[in-house]
Amino acid sequence: MSQKTTGKLAEAIRRGEVLSPDCPSREILKHVTSLWSVLVMVALMDGTHRFSELRRKIGGVSEKMLTQTLQQLEKDGFVKRVSYPVVPPHVEYSLTTLGSGISEQVEALTDWIEINLPTIIELQQTQTQ
Amino acid sequence: MSQKTTGKLAEAIRRGEVLSPDCPSREILKHVTSLWSVLVMVALMDGTHRFSELRRKIGGVSEKMLTQTLQQLEKDGFVKRVSYPVVPPHVEYSLTTLGSGISEQVEALTDWIEINLPTIIELQQTQTQ
Repeated sequence: MSQKTTGKLAEAIRRGEVLSPDCPSREILKHVTSLWSVLVMVALMDGTHRFSELRRKIGGVSEKMLTQTLQQLEKDGFVKRVSYPVVPPHVEYSLTTLGSGISEQVEALTDWIEINLPTIIELQQTQTQ
Repeated sequence: MSQKTTGKLAEAIRRGEVLSPDCPSREILKHVTSLWSVLVMVALMDGTHRFSELRRKIGGVSEKMLTQTLQQLEKDGFVKRVSYPVVPPHVEYSLTTLGSGISEQVEALTDWIEINLPTIIELQQTQTQ
């Protein structure tokens, strides 16, 4: 494993420096590393969505869970919420510049999983035989 | 956002194809996108660890949660568990080749968070003012 010279979070984790539950990076990591956050970010990479569109796109997510996930991502500065003063209410969600940045990292991870999924499944089946 | 031409998971998510809770990629994504999985994988990028070493390194993780996380990562083929027949028992955990691959993606994500943490915190403070 090649060592990176810059002070990266992964290095800090290995040095045991940022694993305190009080560290702010731990909190962000916790928000980002949730299944629903990942799915919301990837869905929003395609552009602005209304709540109902996101809910339809992300199968199995409850209304409550999607609301909480969007609120957290908005609080972290990754998602922008725009509410139009019309009847019935019209609310749109999109990625901020910061959100686009982190979504690209998340996308690289999901791409890796898709590419390696056949190998993963094959290994799992070998184990259970 | 530039469109990729290859059939990637992120694309499939956007097309709403892999969001069924029954899809195997969804299951892997769920295992990988957990705070403890991320921290375990990053810790193991530094090399083989015993259970007690991992527990010390990853602050705040309970024995039960670390056990469950390691078992899941082992089942997915990302972590190798080697038990030596000695007294007292000696068990070592390390990343498999597959595990090293996904850990690199996870590390890129954690690195991004660390680099952008000052911006994220600044934005959060602006919101709460």
